[in-house]
Amino acid sequence: MSAKASVREVLDKVRAEGRDSLTAPEGKQICDAYGIPTPGEGLATTADEAARLAEEIGGSLALKIVSPDILHKTEAGGVIIGVEGGAAASEAFDKIIANALAYKESASITGVQVQQMVGGGHEVIVGATTDPTFGKIVAFGLGGVLVEVLKDVTFRLAPIDSAEAKSMVNGIKAAEVLQGARGAKSVDIDALADVLQKVSALVTDFPEISEFDLNPVFASPEGAIAADVRILLETGETVEPVKHSRDEILRVMNRMMYPDAVAVIGASSEDGKIGNSVMKNLINGGYAGEIYPINPKADEILGKKAYKSISDVPGDVDVAVFAIPAKFVPQALTECGTKGVPAAVLIPSGFAETGNQELQDEIVAIAQKSGVRMLGPNIYGYYSTWHNLCATFCTPYDVRGGVALTSQSGGIGMAILGFSRTTKMGVSAIVGLGNKSDIDEDDLLTFFEQDDNTQCVAMHLEDLKDGRAFVEAAQRITKKKPVVVLKAGRTAMGAKAASSHTGALAGDDKVYDDILRQAGVVRAPGLNEMLEYARGLPLLPTPKGENVVIITGAGGSGVLLSDACVEEGLSLMEIPPDLDEAFRAFIPPFGAAGNPIDITGGEPPSTYEATIRLGLEDPRIHALILGYWHTIVTPPMVFAELTSRVVEEYRAKGIDKPVVASLAGDTEVEQACDYLFDHKVVAYPYTTEKPVAVLGAKYRWARAAGLIKP
Amino acid sequence: MSAKASVREVLDKVRAEGRDSLTAPEGKQICDAYGIPTPGEGLATTADEAARLAEEIGGSLALKIVSPDILHKTEAGGVIIGVEGGAAASEAFDKIIANALAYKESASITGVQVQQMVGGGHEVIVGATTDPTFGKIVAFGLGGVLVEVLKDVTFRLAPIDSAEAKSMVNGIKAAEVLQGARGAKSVDIDALADVLQKVSALVTDFPEISEFDLNPVFASPEGAIAADVRILLETGETVEPVKHSRDEILRVMNRMMYPDAVAVIGASSEDGKIGNSVMKNLINGGYAGEIYPINPKADEILGKKAYKSISDVPGDVDVAVFAIPAKFVPQALTECGTKGVPAAVLIPSGFAETGNQELQDEIVAIAQKSGVRMLGPNIYGYYSTWHNLCATFCTPYDVRGGVALTSQSGGIGMAILGFSRTTKMGVSAIVGLGNKSDIDEDDLLTFFEQDDNTQCVAMHLEDLKDGRAFVEAAQRITKKKPVVVLKAGRTAMGAKAASSHTGALAGDDKVYDDILRQAGVVRAPGLNEMLEYARGLPLLPTPKGENVVIITGAGGSGVLLSDACVEEGLSLMEIPPDLDEAFRAFIPPFGAAGNPIDITGGEPPSTYEATIRLGLEDPRIHALILGYWHTIVTPPMVFAELTSRVVEEYRAKGIDKPVVASLAGDTEVEQACDYLFDHKVVAYPYTTEKPVAVLGAKYRWARAAGLIKP
Repeated sequence: MSAKASVREVLDKVRAEGRDSLTAPEGKQICDAYGIPTPGEGLATTADEAARLAEEIGGSLALKIVSPDILHKTEAGGVIIGVEGGAAASEAFDKIIANALAYKESASITGVQVQQMVGGGHEVIVGATTDPTFGKIVAFGLGGVLVEVLKDVTFRLAPIDSAEAKSMVNGIKAAEVLQGARGAKSVDIDALADVLQKVSALVTDFPEISEFDLNPVFASPEGAIAADVRILLETGETVEPVKHSRDEILRVMNRMMYPDAVAVIGASSEDGKIGNSVMKNLINGGYAGEIYPINPKADEILGKKAYKSISDVPGDVDVAVFAIPAKFVPQALTECGTKGVPAAVLIPSGFAETGNQELQDEIVAIAQKSGVRMLGPNIYGYYSTWHNLCATFCTPYDVRGGVALTSQSGGIGMAILGFSRTTKMGVSAIVGLGNKSDIDEDDLLTFFEQDDNTQCVAMHLEDLKDGRAFVEAAQRITKKKPVVVLKAGRTAMGAKAASSHTGALAGDDKVYDDILRQAGVVRAPGLNEMLEYARGLPLLPTPKGENVVIITGAGGSGVLLSDACVEEGLSLMEIPPDLDEAFRAFIPPFGAAGNPIDITGGEPPSTYEATIRLGLEDPRIHALILGYWHTIVTPPMVFAELTSRVVEEYRAKGIDKPVVASLAGDTEVEQACDYLFDHKVVAYPYTTEKPVAVLGAKYRWARAAGLIKP
Repeated sequence: MSAKASVREVLDKVRAEGRDSLTAPEGKQICDAYGIPTPGEGLATTADEAARLAEEIGGSLALKIVSPDILHKTEAGGVIIGVEGGAAASEAFDKIIANALAYKESASITGVQVQQMVGGGHEVIVGATTDPTFGKIVAFGLGGVLVEVLKDVTFRLAPIDSAEAKSMVNGIKAAEVLQGARGAKSVDIDALADVLQKVSALVTDFPEISEFDLNPVFASPEGAIAADVRILLETGETVEPVKHSRDEILRVMNRMMYPDAVAVIGASSEDGKIGNSVMKNLINGGYAGEIYPINPKADEILGKKAYKSISDVPGDVDVAVFAIPAKFVPQALTECGTKGVPAAVLIPSGFAETGNQELQDEIVAIAQKSGVRMLGPNIYGYYSTWHNLCATFCTPYDVRGGVALTSQSGGIGMAILGFSRTTKMGVSAIVGLGNKSDIDEDDLLTFFEQDDNTQCVAMHLEDLKDGRAFVEAAQRITKKKPVVVLKAGRTAMGAKAASSHTGALAGDDKVYDDILRQAGVVRAPGLNEMLEYARGLPLLPTPKGENVVIITGAGGSGVLLSDACVEEGLSLMEIPPDLDEAFRAFIPPFGAAGNPIDITGGEPPSTYEATIRLGLEDPRIHALILGYWHTIVTPPMVFAELTSRVVEEYRAKGIDKPVVASLAGDTEVEQACDYLFDHKVVAYPYTTEKPVAVLGAKYRWARAAGLIKP
C-alpha cells in the first residue's frame, strides 16, 4: 500500500468513528507511512525472533514481558534494558521468560516486546498547525521548558524543501546547541531536516490534519527520532479563498493602473466634495486619457461632459472611481458590471469598518457575479504617477520614480504622501487598500512584478486575507525587486487557545516574521523605516558580495557605523594586506587603516576622494559606508559633490556599488545629504544608524533573492 | 574567628604558597565563612557519628569509604547513595566498613565521608569578576549550555543589596524557568538572591579575589546550593584611578562652566586659525566676562588687549582655552598652574589619539602637579549657553534650554551641534571630552547635577575611564534628572581571554548595558535616538503612573502606536467602564473606545479636543499618545493649536501629564509638529515610533529614579 493510501485508511477510520484525535498507535502508523522515525519495536515470541528484531531495530533496546497475567513487569523480572545485539537479545528473551514463569508459573505469555530505547541527545519539537492566515505551517524549536519561556521557535509555510528545512534547524537562536556547542558533536541536522520536510509533506497531502506534534523528538549525532506523536483532525469545513489566475489579475490591474478612460461616479462641481476633489486631481494631475464624470444632475463638470449613469458613457471605461455614499454603491456597481468596467475604486466608507458587514458582503457578491474587481472600500484612492493619474481626494503627487507604496490604512497613506513630498521620493504608485473586500496585496504584487516603472514595493498591512497567495506572489516578485513590508499589529493576535503544543506556539507575530522572510520580503520594524527603505532601496544597486567597507573622517562615527553594521547583519570586510597598504598611502600615519578606515578629521577633499576611489575600484569591496565629519578643510557640499562625482564616474564605467553615508556636522550637512540622495548615494545627517539600516535592508533582500552567493 | 578573618587566613596561605587559585576545600572554607551554602559534609569514624552528621546535614546523603588503601570505592562496596536519616546512616556506615574489610582485609580505614547529595532543581551560575572598567561585578545566569549559547546572563556592580540581587534573578530572559513555568514550583528566589549578595560582599571585602565562580548552583524550591566553587586571585598590582572630592570637582567645574574670565592661549587675529575662531565665538556669542587673548607676538586681538603669557594677565583667570600646537601645551600648562588657573580646555590634537601617548602622559603629570584640571585634549571646546559662552572653534550656538550634551568624539559633537540648530533644541551646555586625559563624564555629571540650568544630560561615550565613579555620579544625578547615554563600540571589546566562566561571560556589551541601567541611566540605541531623547525628555513632565492612553484619528496609526508601546515597555491602560462610557460620548458609534481610543478620521477639531481634555482631566490616566490624521475637517495646524492650548490650559491648572503625538499627513504636519514641540508636546511627522520611544525613555528614567510607584 502506498504511503498516502496507508494514511488515508487510518484517517478514514478515525473519521468513521467520529473522533478528531488519533491514538498513539495510529499516530505511529502515520509516521511509519511517511518515514518519520519513531522508536522501532516488535513482538518476539521466540528467542530467535527477539534476536532478529534486535538486529533490525539496532541500538540499545528494552525487552519487556507481554502477559495479561503479569501487571508488575519489573517486579516479575520481566524487563531488561540496555540490551544490544542479537545474541544479547536472545539471551534476554530466555531470561525474561524464565523470570516470568518463576514469578507466576501459570502466567499466559504473549511474548516479549522488543523496543528501541530513545532519550539521548537533545529534545526538540517538530510540529505543524493550520494558521488562519497562512494555512499549513510547520514549526521547529528546542523542547523542554525553554521553548515556551524563551519562545525560541521558528515557522515556515508548508511544504518546505530540504534547504528551507535546514534553515529552520539552523535558524533558531539556540541552534548552536544542536550544532555542537562547547566542543560537543553536532546532532544529525540532515535527519532533523528530513523529519521537518516529511511532516510538512504529510500536512500538505492531508489538509484535514489540523495539528501535528512530534514532542519530543530526540536529536542526536546518530539521527532524530520522534518519541511521542499527537495528531488532531479538522472538524469544521474550511472555505477556500477566491483565486484569480495571474492573467486575470494582470488584465484588470493593467487597465486600472494605466487606464485609457476613467469614470468618476459621483463627480461634482461643488468645492469640498470628494467627487470634486477627485475630478480636480485627475485634471490637474495631467491625466491624458478620457475622464467621464457621472452625475444624474449635471450636464458638465469642470469642463467635461457629464453622464447620468455609467451605462450612458459612449466608449469603454477601464476604471470607475466611486465618490458616492455607501448606500448607493451596490446599484452603481451593478451598472459597472453591465457596462463591462473591469475595476471599481471604492473611496466611500460606511462598510465593514463601521460595522456594516452586510453592505460589504452585498457588494462583494455583486462584484463577483458581475466580474468587477474592487479596490477598497474605505480608501483615499490611488496614484499612478507615470500615467499622471491621481485618482484620489488627497492632493496630487507627481514625482515619478521606482517605488510603489500601498497602505491598508488611510492615515498611513497620508503619512506616505507627506513623506514622499518632503523627501521628493520618486514614486510609481501609491495605492490605498482599505477594507480589502477584493483586491489585496497579492494582486498588487502580481501587477508590480511586471510593471517596468516599479523597482521596489513598500506595503503597510495589518493582516493578510490570503497569506499563501501573498507568499506565492511575493516569492515571485522578490526574485527581481525588493518588497518592504510594515506589518502592524504585532501583538494584536494574542494567545490562541489551542489544544496542541505547536498550535499554542503559533498565533504569534513570530509566524508572520518567519513567513515574511520565507517569502523574501524585507520587514520594516516601523513606519519610518518602511518609508526610508522605500526611498533608499531603488537608488542603491544590488551589492555583488558581502564585503562592506567603512571610510570615515570621524573616528567616533566609525565606531557607531561598525555597531550599526553588526546590528544589521552586515560583514565588515577583513582588509587584505595589499589593500590595507593601498589605503594607508592616502591617510595620515596616525589614521587607522583596517576597517573602519579612519582617514582622520583634518583631511582635505583629496583624501576622501582617493579613498572612495580605491573603495569603488577594488573588486573585492562590494559596498561602501562613508562617515563624513564637517570641517573647514572639507565643507559638507564639497564632500557631497566629490562623492557624487566619483560614484557617477565609476557608475558610467559599469562599476556600480551601493554607497551610503552618515554626515556629522552643522546644518549644511542637510543640503549635502539632499545632493547625495539626488545622486543615488543614500545619505543622512545626525544619524549613523539610518544609512546602514537602508544598506542592511538592501542586503537582506539581495540574499533572499539569491543574488549574493554565500 | 570572624568571617573576614577566616577568609584572610585562607587567602594569606594561598599567597604564601605562591598560588593564584584556590583548592576546592579552600573554596568551601571561604563559602562557609560568608554563609554561601555548599553541600554539607563530614567525616564519620563511628556509626553514631555518621548518624549525627546525617541528622545535621539533612536530606539525601552519599556515604563513601575513606581509606588510602581502597582506590576503587564502588567496586569495594564502599559507596552507598540516597541515604536519609540517622538510622539509615548508621546502618550504611556499618555496611560500608564491613564491605571494605571484606574487599581488603588489611585496609587502613580513615572513616566514612558523609556528603549531602545535590542535583535537584535548576542549574544556575553565580559569579564575580574584575572588570577593567567597572571593577568588581557580579554575574548571574542559567547554567548549562544555554547560558553560553543564548548569553542569557546579567551583571551588576558589586556590592549589591537584596533588591538588586532579586532584580538579577528576575531579570534574565529565562527568569520564568526559575519562577515556576508551566505550573512548576518557583525556586527559592530569596535564597538565590542571598547567594548573589554574599558573593558580591565577599569580592568587595577582598579585592584580590579576581574571579569567583559558583558553577553550578542548584536552585530549587528548598533553597540554593553551590555544588562547585572556583576562586582566582589577582596576581598583578591594580592602579586606583585618581579621585577628586565632590567639592573639588564643583569648585573647578563651576568656574569652568560659568567663568568670570577666560584666557585664550594662542589667540589670533588671523582668519581661519583656531585661536581666531575661538576669540570670535567668545566675543560674538555675547560672553560678558573678561577675555584675555594670549599671544607673544600681538598687543591686541579683535579689540582685546593681548598678553605675552598667561602670567602677565592682571586678574584671576577661571579657564584657559588652548589653541596652540600640541608641542607648546606643556609649557603653557605649567604657566597656567603657576598662575592658579583651575581649568584648561585643550583643543589641540596630537596626543594619545595620534599615538603620542608620551606627550599626553607629560601634560597629565604637569596638570596633577600644578592642580590644573584639563578638558581634552583633542576637542572642539565647549558651550555654556546660559553664560553666553562659546569656547569653541565651531560656530556659536545660543538656543538656551535644559539639555546638556557631551561627546567623546568631535564628529559626534558636530552632529550634536547641527541637530541642535536644526531642531532649535534648547541647550544648557555642549562639551567635548576627546581624549579624557583628566575631566570625564563623572566630573560633568557631578556638575550638571547641581546646575539649575540643566534638566537632562545626554552623553556620547566610547569607554569610561572609571566606571565605578561614573555609576556613583550617575546614581546621584539620575534621582533628579534624566541622563541619556549613547555607548558606542558595542562589539569592540570582543571576547576576553579568561580562565573563569564568569570572566568569559563578561567583556561583553551586556556588562555596560546592565550596569548603565543599574546607574539609572537611559541608554539610547543609536545617535539619532540620543539626540531625540535629549530634545524631548526635558519638555515632558514626569509621569505619575503607568497608565498610558492612545487617542487616535487614524485606526492604522493606533495599531502602530500600540506596537510601539509594547516595544517600549509602556502599559496601555485598561479603560474602566465609566471612563470608556465617557469617551464614547464624544466619538462616533462605529469608533472604538477601549485603548487605543479611535475617534475615527472624519471628526472635527471638537472631537480631538473633547477626548484630549478627558484624557488630561481623568486622574487615572498618566500619559497621552495622540495619533493625528490629516483631513480637511481638522487640518494639521488646527490640531496643533487646539492640542497645545488644551495642554497648556491644564498645565496652568497644575495638571501636567506627558503628551506625545504622531502626525500622519501631508507636509503641513511638519509645521504642526514644530508648533507642538514649542508647546512641550513631543510630536513627529511620518513616524509612530519616535514619539513613543521618547515617552518610553522618560518612563525608563522615572522608574529607575523611583518616581513611579510600581
